[in-house]
Amino acid sequence: MTFALTHLIDLERVLALYPETDLDRDTAIATLAEAARFAEMVIAPLDAVGDREGLQYRDGEVTTPTGYREAYSRFIEQGWHALPCDPHYGGQGFPRAIAAMAEELWRSSNMAFTGCMTLTHGAIAALEARASAGLKERFLPALVKGRWSGTMNLTEPQAGSDLSAIRTLAAPSADGTYRVKGQKIFISWGRHDLTDNIIHLVLARTPNAPAGVRGLSMFLVPQQLLDQDGNPGPGNDVRCASIEVKVGQHSAPTTTMLYGSEPTDSGEEGAIGYLVGDLHKGLEIMFIMMNEARFGVGTEGLAATEHALQTARSYARERIQGSEAGSASDVKVPIIRHPDVRRMLMRMKAAAEGMRALCVVIGAAIDQALRSSDAQQRNEAQHFVDFMTPIFKGGNTEAANELTSLGVQIHGGFGYMEDCPAARHWRDVRISAIYEGTTAIQANDLVGRKIARDGGAQARKLATQMRDVGEAACTHEDLVALGAALVTGADTIDTVTNILLDRYGHSQPDVLLVSVPILELFWIAAIGWQLGRGALAAQGALAAADSDQTFLRAKIVTANFFAQHWMPQMEALRREITASSDAIVALSDDQV
Amino acid sequence: MTFALTHLIDLERVLALYPETDLDRDTAIATLAEAARFAEMVIAPLDAVGDREGLQYRDGEVTTPTGYREAYSRFIEQGWHALPCDPHYGGQGFPRAIAAMAEELWRSSNMAFTGCMTLTHGAIAALEARASAGLKERFLPALVKGRWSGTMNLTEPQAGSDLSAIRTLAAPSADGTYRVKGQKIFISWGRHDLTDNIIHLVLARTPNAPAGVRGLSMFLVPQQLLDQDGNPGPGNDVRCASIEVKVGQHSAPTTTMLYGSEPTDSGEEGAIGYLVGDLHKGLEIMFIMMNEARFGVGTEGLAATEHALQTARSYARERIQGSEAGSASDVKVPIIRHPDVRRMLMRMKAAAEGMRALCVVIGAAIDQALRSSDAQQRNEAQHFVDFMTPIFKGGNTEAANELTSLGVQIHGGFGYMEDCPAARHWRDVRISAIYEGTTAIQANDLVGRKIARDGGAQARKLATQMRDVGEAACTHEDLVALGAALVTGADTIDTVTNILLDRYGHSQPDVLLVSVPILELFWIAAIGWQLGRGALAAQGALAAADSDQTFLRAKIVTANFFAQHWMPQMEALRREITASSDAIVALSDDQV
Repeated sequence: MTFALTHLIDLERVLALYPETDLDRDTAIATLAEAARFAEMVIAPLDAVGDREGLQYRDGEVTTPTGYREAYSRFIEQGWHALPCDPHYGGQGFPRAIAAMAEELWRSSNMAFTGCMTLTHGAIAALEARASAGLKERFLPALVKGRWSGTMNLTEPQAGSDLSAIRTLAAPSADGTYRVKGQKIFISWGRHDLTDNIIHLVLARTPNAPAGVRGLSMFLVPQQLLDQDGNPGPGNDVRCASIEVKVGQHSAPTTTMLYGSEPTDSGEEGAIGYLVGDLHKGLEIMFIMMNEARFGVGTEGLAATEHALQTARSYARERIQGSEAGSASDVKVPIIRHPDVRRMLMRMKAAAEGMRALCVVIGAAIDQALRSSDAQQRNEAQHFVDFMTPIFKGGNTEAANELTSLGVQIHGGFGYMEDCPAARHWRDVRISAIYEGTTAIQANDLVGRKIARDGGAQARKLATQMRDVGEAACTHEDLVALGAALVTGADTIDTVTNILLDRYGHSQPDVLLVSVPILELFWIAAIGWQLGRGALAAQGALAAADSDQTFLRAKIVTANFFAQHWMPQMEALRREITASSDAIVALSDDQV
Repeated sequence: MTFALTHLIDLERVLALYPETDLDRDTAIATLAEAARFAEMVIAPLDAVGDREGLQYRDGEVTTPTGYREAYSRFIEQGWHALPCDPHYGGQGFPRAIAAMAEELWRSSNMAFTGCMTLTHGAIAALEARASAGLKERFLPALVKGRWSGTMNLTEPQAGSDLSAIRTLAAPSADGTYRVKGQKIFISWGRHDLTDNIIHLVLARTPNAPAGVRGLSMFLVPQQLLDQDGNPGPGNDVRCASIEVKVGQHSAPTTTMLYGSEPTDSGEEGAIGYLVGDLHKGLEIMFIMMNEARFGVGTEGLAATEHALQTARSYARERIQGSEAGSASDVKVPIIRHPDVRRMLMRMKAAAEGMRALCVVIGAAIDQALRSSDAQQRNEAQHFVDFMTPIFKGGNTEAANELTSLGVQIHGGFGYMEDCPAARHWRDVRISAIYEGTTAIQANDLVGRKIARDGGAQARKLATQMRDVGEAACTHEDLVALGAALVTGADTIDTVTNILLDRYGHSQPDVLLVSVPILELFWIAAIGWQLGRGALAAQGALAAADSDQTFLRAKIVTANFFAQHWMPQMEALRREITASSDAIVALSDDQV
């Protein structure tokens, strides 16, 4: 993390964007070291406990596993929850680039536990951007502190990826509030016992609103209504009807929420809600939360991979099995000495380091987009973030599915035991490529809104940056393989971008048939680009008198590994993308 | 299945190898239809039950889920268990090519349930090949019938992939039997309530045996010793100490077995066992079982993929979500209309059909190897089977990991629910790439014993056959893309084979660093070859007056899909394999 913050972004410049926080480089790094200790000592030990115990549901209440309440209390008391939040509402005002690294630590320690904070941060972002001053003052301080948590209520049984099918209704009341009635499913952290209140952000339809997504508005529906002092008071008509039994993330409640399900004496039925932002602008507000959450879920892919790597590496160093390949000796060795175990670990390592680099770089761009005094810089940074978000979310989580599975493989039969940490990482992360928009949703966003809409400008920029790194790498003897792969990769990105734009003009569905392979291609390019930047930086840093040669040389090797053993995949994807897609759709639904 | 049996092998010739069975083509196909009904009506409904209920362990006894005992009884009573077995011992004497298709049905209906039979068939193969006439007559009839089951006892805590570390001891007794003492772990179906007896085949070391695998012998250790009438009599000193809680296959017991753990009054401790075959030839006998099991586990990869496809396809046809891409209409459509869902289903379909074709072709080759009157034909067929086994086992199961995960993805959030069938397929099959030799073990077997040892002869033969199919395909307008991919693929196989042989001569470990990518490459080649043969056959069959045009055209489209959207992966693998492997091993163990 220190390497990425030091060599891959201009940390001083990022810190300067937050003058009110008065944070210097050393304090920032020291804070991460402190976060790592907290993650290791307090959160990580609960990962196995939470997986084993799961959640208790009774009469609408959800009880978290042993130790969760205490850990969460300490987490918010020590200010970790508020790390990236606005000091005006009690936040610590840390740059996103640094907060994202802290989030990797929380997520890798216990993905399920950390989800609660992710949702709350999403709600904070939405409220900060669009809520009235009154709502902000009443709700943001407790949300920022973590005393209350937030949720994102989108999905209904008939409305998953397709939000236009949402039926939950919000009827205006005479007092200016709304009465919300409907059922929401798959609501993460919709009910739990970690906080005093839960602030639901609910996407709903007002009477006579336009059909489809244009008729959706966003409502803040507190679990407990606030009393005159702003404290949680009387209950609202919001009920958790059940929780799901899932493959992983056993300690993260996934709830079915009923709004306005209780009978009333008065004529007005429904949970009391407050309109957030303008009427019929619900989707825009949802996307503020969603983009926040997508960056978080991309970080989840990184975190799961890193934890799976650490688990598998420890096991591979300790598990003695077989003798060294090609050796005449029959002395037994740790399996980390076996060729294929090494290959699998290198895949995990390269991807984790590349994803982390990308995470820091996107985080720094978010900081620029939020804080730069220069409008053009803000604009450029925002475009980069918008472009990278689906790649980071979709690519990291798909990679994490493969890489956590390698973690299982390295454990052999032990990896298949329900309580093996390797199995847990693999089970926990499987939802990450689904929630907050499936990989196909990310891919369609990438090819449509992020590549086609700007005529491929951002995509070509990535190719140019990649090529620049590649050409620089080619001048170093140790980096020639990496350099060549990056230059070739940049050409591939340009080629595919042109083909995509050409096809998109003729037939959007044709492009959507290969949008996921396109996303995978861009993810490999982005990871290669960042590993390349890291290798160049490491090469440069080697000369320093006090440099950590062992660490820096590993950076170079890891980047070369990725270039030689993963980037060839780009050529396969190019061929798959540019081939005729006829065969994908030639069959009738019945023939498939 | 009928298509594969009709067009991809010479079924009449295969049937002619089993004259005593007096089976004709129509009866063989009708038997499979009957098997399909049994699988669907009796076995498949237990899949969810078994996953949910799991197993009960108490005092060394294991109870299977509700309905398992009855279903198993009907299964053996109707003779399904004995389908491929020798009529001399009560078997039905069906060719392997046909029995393998029945096995796909059992496995896809309930992978966990079917495992018991797999182990028994492995034990039967070992005993048929090497046991004394006395052991055969006492044990084979009940094993063939399925009244008793078999197990394969290899793994110990310190001896997983490395069997040379086995410590279980078998001491000769004065009566010619042995006393077996030791602990075995991860023993599939080591204890259960489906049969009257369990026949353990135990790999153990005799006193003063040579070190390593050369000192291992195979012992038959019955759970219950036989009485004078050959019925299960007094208990043997074999105890199931515990069962594992696994990620999937909840109804398949994975046991820890203790041999000779009870105190005795006499000086002789240990479970009574009978030597199978010659002393110190245990590994050879183990490989007879193992190769049988590997073909079965490869079929498991096929079966899991097919079931995942059927589950996902049904869901995709019924789940209404979103409107058609590129359409102005906002009418909601089933998700099978969405481009990426279609792409994922086509991946599953192509792989399932290719794996099934390969399964039948390998099955027919096993029949030739076992039964042909021509020694050279037997020899050639056996070489083909030996070559294909690691490809089929390793490649199918790795593909099944990806493809069952696509099944989860198609289900969206519902796929992450513990009791979703899609999640079950994905969880159940995750062990298949681990047990009976991990993918790396298969890959090392492929590059060493199967490619290097014969100087690449079998590998080049595959390339030649692939090229022939490709060139034939190129002459049909509808198959040009397929033909080109097969010809290119054949060249890639030749190239990689040459590089492999060259490197292997210099440094075996260098080849092992990329042995898994090599296995993946050969798997894609083999699948493409078979899909190509199928497409050519379909093309030919289209002209027939009563041909099923819908079905046959789907074969052509599916093969083209694989050629255009999966076979490009061969080029990526070629580059990965031929690149320098230095970066995989350049780091010290601490640097990884």
